[in-house]
Amino acid sequence: MGTNKKILVVNGPNLNLLGTREPEIYGDKTLEDVKRLMLSAAEGYDITLEFFQSNVEGDIINYLHQNRSADGVVINPAAFTHTSIALRDAIAATGIPAVEVHLSNIHAREEFRRVSYVAPVCIGQISGFGIQSYLLGLLALLHHLGIEVRK
Amino acid sequence: MGTNKKILVVNGPNLNLLGTREPEIYGDKTLEDVKRLMLSAAEGYDITLEFFQSNVEGDIINYLHQNRSADGVVINPAAFTHTSIALRDAIAATGIPAVEVHLSNIHAREEFRRVSYVAPVCIGQISGFGIQSYLLGLLALLHHLGIEVRK
Amino acid sequence: MGTNKKILVVNGPNLNLLGTREPEIYGDKTLEDVKRLMLSAAEGYDITLEFFQSNVEGDIINYLHQNRSADGVVINPAAFTHTSIALRDAIAATGIPAVEVHLSNIHAREEFRRVSYVAPVCIGQISGFGIQSYLLGLLALLHHLGIEVRK
Amino acid sequence: MGTNKKILVVNGPNLNLLGTREPEIYGDKTLEDVKRLMLSAAEGYDITLEFFQSNVEGDIINYLHQNRSADGVVINPAAFTHTSIALRDAIAATGIPAVEVHLSNIHAREEFRRVSYVAPVCIGQISGFGIQSYLLGLLALLHHLGIEVRK
Amino acid sequence: MGTNKKILVVNGPNLNLLGTREPEIYGDKTLEDVKRLMLSAAEGYDITLEFFQSNVEGDIINYLHQNRSADGVVINPAAFTHTSIALRDAIAATGIPAVEVHLSNIHAREEFRRVSYVAPVCIGQISGFGIQSYLLGLLALLHHLGIEVRK
Amino acid sequence: MGTNKKILVVNGPNLNLLGTREPEIYGDKTLEDVKRLMLSAAEGYDITLEFFQSNVEGDIINYLHQNRSADGVVINPAAFTHTSIALRDAIAATGIPAVEVHLSNIHAREEFRRVSYVAPVCIGQISGFGIQSYLLGLLALLHHLGIEVRK
Amino acid sequence: MGTNKKILVVNGPNLNLLGTREPEIYGDKTLEDVKRLMLSAAEGYDITLEFFQSNVEGDIINYLHQNRSADGVVINPAAFTHTSIALRDAIAATGIPAVEVHLSNIHAREEFRRVSYVAPVCIGQISGFGIQSYLLGLLALLHHLGIEVRK
Amino acid sequence: MGTNKKILVVNGPNLNLLGTREPEIYGDKTLEDVKRLMLSAAEGYDITLEFFQSNVEGDIINYLHQNRSADGVVINPAAFTHTSIALRDAIAATGIPAVEVHLSNIHAREEFRRVSYVAPVCIGQISGFGIQSYLLGLLALLHHLGIEVRK
Amino acid sequence: MGTNKKILVVNGPNLNLLGTREPEIYGDKTLEDVKRLMLSAAEGYDITLEFFQSNVEGDIINYLHQNRSADGVVINPAAFTHTSIALRDAIAATGIPAVEVHLSNIHAREEFRRVSYVAPVCIGQISGFGIQSYLLGLLALLHHLGIEVRK
Amino acid sequence: MGTNKKILVVNGPNLNLLGTREPEIYGDKTLEDVKRLMLSAAEGYDITLEFFQSNVEGDIINYLHQNRSADGVVINPAAFTHTSIALRDAIAATGIPAVEVHLSNIHAREEFRRVSYVAPVCIGQISGFGIQSYLLGLLALLHHLGIEVRK
Amino acid sequence: MGTNKKILVVNGPNLNLLGTREPEIYGDKTLEDVKRLMLSAAEGYDITLEFFQSNVEGDIINYLHQNRSADGVVINPAAFTHTSIALRDAIAATGIPAVEVHLSNIHAREEFRRVSYVAPVCIGQISGFGIQSYLLGLLALLHHLGIEVRK
Amino acid sequence: MGTNKKILVVNGPNLNLLGTREPEIYGDKTLEDVKRLMLSAAEGYDITLEFFQSNVEGDIINYLHQNRSADGVVINPAAFTHTSIALRDAIAATGIPAVEVHLSNIHAREEFRRVSYVAPVCIGQISGFGIQSYLLGLLALLHHLGIEVRK
Repeated sequence: MGTNKKILVVNGPNLNLLGTREPEIYGDKTLEDVKRLMLSAAEGYDITLEFFQSNVEGDIINYLHQNRSADGVVINPAAFTHTSIALRDAIAATGIPAVEVHLSNIHAREEFRRVSYVAPVCIGQISGFGIQSYLLGLLALLHHLGIEVRK
Repeated sequence: MGTNKKILVVNGPNLNLLGTREPEIYGDKTLEDVKRLMLSAAEGYDITLEFFQSNVEGDIINYLHQNRSADGVVINPAAFTHTSIALRDAIAATGIPAVEVHLSNIHAREEFRRVSYVAPVCIGQISGFGIQSYLLGLLALLHHLGIEVRK
Repeated sequence: MGTNKKILVVNGPNLNLLGTREPEIYGDKTLEDVKRLMLSAAEGYDITLEFFQSNVEGDIINYLHQNRSADGVVINPAAFTHTSIALRDAIAATGIPAVEVHLSNIHAREEFRRVSYVAPVCIGQISGFGIQSYLLGLLALLHHLGIEVRK
Repeated sequence: MGTNKKILVVNGPNLNLLGTREPEIYGDKTLEDVKRLMLSAAEGYDITLEFFQSNVEGDIINYLHQNRSADGVVINPAAFTHTSIALRDAIAATGIPAVEVHLSNIHAREEFRRVSYVAPVCIGQISGFGIQSYLLGLLALLHHLGIEVRK
Repeated sequence: MGTNKKILVVNGPNLNLLGTREPEIYGDKTLEDVKRLMLSAAEGYDITLEFFQSNVEGDIINYLHQNRSADGVVINPAAFTHTSIALRDAIAATGIPAVEVHLSNIHAREEFRRVSYVAPVCIGQISGFGIQSYLLGLLALLHHLGIEVRK
Repeated sequence: MGTNKKILVVNGPNLNLLGTREPEIYGDKTLEDVKRLMLSAAEGYDITLEFFQSNVEGDIINYLHQNRSADGVVINPAAFTHTSIALRDAIAATGIPAVEVHLSNIHAREEFRRVSYVAPVCIGQISGFGIQSYLLGLLALLHHLGIEVRK
Repeated sequence: MGTNKKILVVNGPNLNLLGTREPEIYGDKTLEDVKRLMLSAAEGYDITLEFFQSNVEGDIINYLHQNRSADGVVINPAAFTHTSIALRDAIAATGIPAVEVHLSNIHAREEFRRVSYVAPVCIGQISGFGIQSYLLGLLALLHHLGIEVRK
Repeated sequence: MGTNKKILVVNGPNLNLLGTREPEIYGDKTLEDVKRLMLSAAEGYDITLEFFQSNVEGDIINYLHQNRSADGVVINPAAFTHTSIALRDAIAATGIPAVEVHLSNIHAREEFRRVSYVAPVCIGQISGFGIQSYLLGLLALLHHLGIEVRK
Repeated sequence: MGTNKKILVVNGPNLNLLGTREPEIYGDKTLEDVKRLMLSAAEGYDITLEFFQSNVEGDIINYLHQNRSADGVVINPAAFTHTSIALRDAIAATGIPAVEVHLSNIHAREEFRRVSYVAPVCIGQISGFGIQSYLLGLLALLHHLGIEVRK
Repeated sequence: MGTNKKILVVNGPNLNLLGTREPEIYGDKTLEDVKRLMLSAAEGYDITLEFFQSNVEGDIINYLHQNRSADGVVINPAAFTHTSIALRDAIAATGIPAVEVHLSNIHAREEFRRVSYVAPVCIGQISGFGIQSYLLGLLALLHHLGIEVRK
Repeated sequence: MGTNKKILVVNGPNLNLLGTREPEIYGDKTLEDVKRLMLSAAEGYDITLEFFQSNVEGDIINYLHQNRSADGVVINPAAFTHTSIALRDAIAATGIPAVEVHLSNIHAREEFRRVSYVAPVCIGQISGFGIQSYLLGLLALLHHLGIEVRK
Repeated sequence: MGTNKKILVVNGPNLNLLGTREPEIYGDKTLEDVKRLMLSAAEGYDITLEFFQSNVEGDIINYLHQNRSADGVVINPAAFTHTSIALRDAIAATGIPAVEVHLSNIHAREEFRRVSYVAPVCIGQISGFGIQSYLLGLLALLHHLGIEVRK
């Protein structure tokens, strides 16, 4: 039916290494675990999740452009958070409602990780809860889209 | 039973006016609505919620000190986010696991609202989802405490 | 009659010591002199003045909240001018028309006294005229409220 | 009689366009209205007002030099507030007691309008009350000169 | 006799938790230990010590105001050191000779702990010697008051 | 004879008040004294001095343009030193060899007086010697022009 | 006929020396060449060009005020670009559609030439093409005014 | 014939969405309109235009490398303007004469859009005229290449 | 034998143009010369060199990911040195021991080339020796890997 | 006996002039007075004091190196406090427990005197108590070394 | 006779190489030429010149201390100008009237050469006139000491 | 023979303690090890190495002056890297080709260690490879001097 919502889950650079990459910062869960967690959470909602990861800034922008009819995006821009005005512009240009998520607490790390070019064009930002950040981001997005979230 | 967890929900200055205060920024829901939403969400979990709001920085610090045996705190420090090192120190001193939440997207507002003294001593920060931010904060905290969250 | 206007006169930290405190900067007039001056000025206008002073930031915020139906406020935030985002938010949240006043010329003192968090949410700022600043602030407020000021 | 005081009212660049210039910021009153308002306010005081406006920084400095025996000046330096050290030096050099006034609340506008080179050499600054700022400035100056102001 | 000197010992926010709070930074001594140490040190001098701690900035200011006839104050402003212009003004306004003390070496911690609003209005600052900082502060104050210190 | 050199002596804003203006900073000598001092110093050299003062930045620029065939200029830009890129460009555009002089030691005053837009396009800068600065500036210029200076 | 458009061409300080002034930066064309180039370009369009140059900031402001009924202005503020808030305000106050042009590429020169106070109140900025910048500025303005530009 | 000039027209990230993307900032013309406009303008000149757009920074660099024998480039680097030193280096490395163009007036937007890494290695920059900026950029480039532009 | 070490030699944007690109800065040697130099140097050591160059940031990250079992990398990130947090994270995430090399002396060039996001996660940095920088980087890496370097 | 502790007392540049140097800042006591005061204080403790002063940064470093077996150092680095990373490194390199002392309250003087390169590698800092600062520094050091201080 | 004045001429680091050192910046005159020039200029005045040069900051300080009874000093602190607070303090501590001189125009060189720690404690600063700067400095000093300078 | 090259190896402050000084940062090799390593590496080349270490900035400058006929210098300025403009000037003044080396990776340490005053006047900088940095520095220098390095 037409009311089915398409939600993108977009991951930025180096997140493909999740689980093996600096586990003391990012935990030991993999991107596959993120996928499983979110699919499980999506059950029972009339939504479709689509997953995407790339280390190429422009490919993420292309992906957002190609899916600009999507109903929302949960995005972890990783390092691009702090350097990519192009990604910021892509979210503003497509108008897809977006929630920015981070595994680590970016506000407790290096100075240069505290500023986000992307957050000002998102609904909001969730940071610091490991792979739960994605789940919380999904719930935030569902609520924003008017889908009542199970409590 | 002893496994019941006590969760504090702490609100900083001017949040008692929620619902009437600049609704274009903060929405039309009141602090009472926040309470109802969270109590409803808490049903079925073995947790007890305790609510506190004050416009006095020191009273919030006192409250945290008096409840330092609590299992977690969802805190919206409001304006104190950006000015109170004392509040930061109180969270670090009591050692209560904390989640910082904000109604508005602080990363999309005045420059001085982008920096948080409190976030670096919290598990993480959630910002921009209206009163849903509290709900997401609670879920994040439950997960941190090892309580499996219903999806 | 209902057209009587209630005007708050709010003083921030250390102003209770006025007259004895660093008289070379703040003059030898006391807060009681301020009160007398303003009451005398208020004569003949259909207004009621209410005075408040506190050294506790949160108590000033509480006072503003409790008197949010007031028609205006002449406020000397003293040191809070430069540090209190909470006070700024309180004025914005209550929507009380406010005039910020200062005894000393804050633009001619230490660098950190030149910036005001409060002024941007006020009608305007008056600084440097000793206790006359309050009187001028009252006149500015009366005019803003549509009360014709005697010249 | 010799006790008659001469007060200058000096206006900086673009204020000759007042009333037509960006009325949403500066209001719809003209410089002629300012003059009328001040002359009316001056009635009954033993003072003489002299009005001057120029868009040329050096002409304002010349005017101040030529009138350095004046008893006071109400000055709206407009854009020169933020850029003219020469004007600051002129006020210090002539020693004329000065009150800086602004129509708009300069503390609520662009960052570069928040700093004043002129204010530190003035008695004080009044900002944000439309053409009433001039009136308040005159009253402040009269009081400074020992002329009792009608309340 | 009238020559007995009253010395205040004032502690800022979170210091009531001393001994349990982040012992790797602040040590395992409590505020009670500080009191005992100072009382023991005060023996034999014609001085009276009075202890005060609060987490409320305004209450500390009130306390200083109420005790403005005191002969000196050893003050650990804790987090307020870096944020409270009101506390600075309170010390300047009461004119009580003050010595600022810190348990930890604030010059070796986060950038924001290196600046003190309070120190410029004190006689001096002592930082980094655990609870000995209080003792040294007392000795410094005694000497300042012309009381010969036992060596 | 054709080898006679024309030297301009240019003074910026407020220097016409020299001698009466803030004598504790600028001394009690007048611009007329400067002239006398320099004319006396010029005796015996094959040079012609021409004096100019204006409070109007553009008039100084015009004067330099009109005299661009001059052999050198001793210039005290006063407040324009720190604000006038136009004056800097005028010196560069005319190519007149220039020496910047200051009565007071600008490096010992307000922060904003330490930076000169003009100095980088001059031969050098002399600052702090009262009206002797002009004399020294003239000697420096003469030497630069290949005129042997009497020792 | 009434549809004839009046376009101002305004030049700031030192541009009267164009052609002789630092030709390695500004080229060897004179302001007269600029005029010829623009008049030739204007042929066939129903527009009238009026040229103005001054080294006095206030005179440029006066000129804009006196010609505020003009349909557009091509302005090279030269050094005033970086220092004149008054000129910025004059453009905003008169509401004349403006195009800012520069002969040299200001983005490739000294740091202080990269910031323009004027550009934010213009339609746009053209920088770096020698006297062609004026021609391009005229074309941009014509298009803005709805006059179809010959290609 | 060999004198035919090849001109590249290069567009950076998100410009493929032109016309639909934030039309209040970027207008409703598409990149296809830009192409048509430029081809029409190119008629009659002995030049060949080649169009390229990519959201991938490296692909734009590759394109410039592959076309380094081109005679010129009109480039709108979009978001890369403010973040890409690599693009700056590519223009310097290939030595292709470049004109930087922008649809919106980047000097009137967010602070971070005012700085260009690319402009210092270009002939000049044109900003704020919608799709006319491209046309003006082409004319500027033609003139730079010694092709007389029709007026 | 299993002790053979695999060393990556990775080159960032525009380095494919080496030898033709701004030879006054980067010299006239090509990337092929770099390869020859390093292969010659590698002779006799039990190592295998693998060369990679890309202008696409994400492709370099992908390459590092795919070769994360490599024993070391000599990397010239070129312009990405100063802008790519993603590349920094890739080196940290893969854990490949890295040596950062530069042809030119980046500490003697533009301000923005002095800061490296990449260096803090490398063993060290070598800058300024033309293509010898690569050779020195290889020797540094060999020594780090415990391979005795011929002197 | 071997438990005798050797304590260095090191003074930086210009302190040899103490007593005659700017007495309004540094008091009228000489370095000889400092020595007498400390020797008197040391009586009865099993410690040996050794005094050193130099105006040569490197000589102080040499002295610390030669005495690296000392048990502690009370050091007044004077101007080197704010400029000498070498002195900081010397203290860290020798590992001698150090207490930094200052005669004047460096936090109440010029901005550049507020930052200490040395303090972060010391136990703590004592500032503002005239020559008593040395005595307090000695007591702090004794306590640090486990020698019970007489109260 | 006792009225003979002793004037020190002090040179900082690397000035012993004058004449051979970067002659395009510092000229081809040697320190011996400076000496000859000054001795020749001193003839006929009742003054004695004493010359000193050292590359060791502390030795210069020692020299000033040992000659603190001197009547004045012409000092070229060279690189120490920008880094030595100790030298500044030495001049303030000895109270010797000082004139700071520079061969090159320090205001036209690297950013870090524009700030002087020394100038604020000198009578004034002379910069940019080659070895004539010393001569001018001597004349400035003589005048300051009340010795009439030959014109 | 005349072609023998003299290479200086210069070490700055605290490097005499190498091997005992903070070994977790600087390793356990001594300066004697550095010497042995370099002498061994120098075998077979027609060069003479001369070693120098001092903690006195001026002595290093003197040493460079006295050896200005040397063919090159490998210099580890240690803490002087970040504070000594005099050392920078000494290298520029003598014109000795210099290579700056560091044991630790200065780009991965405190902020103030990332900036080098010395590097801009050197051929290049090598940082982070322990005592191998010296060896690499020597090889870099040999190559710069046209001596073919053994691979």
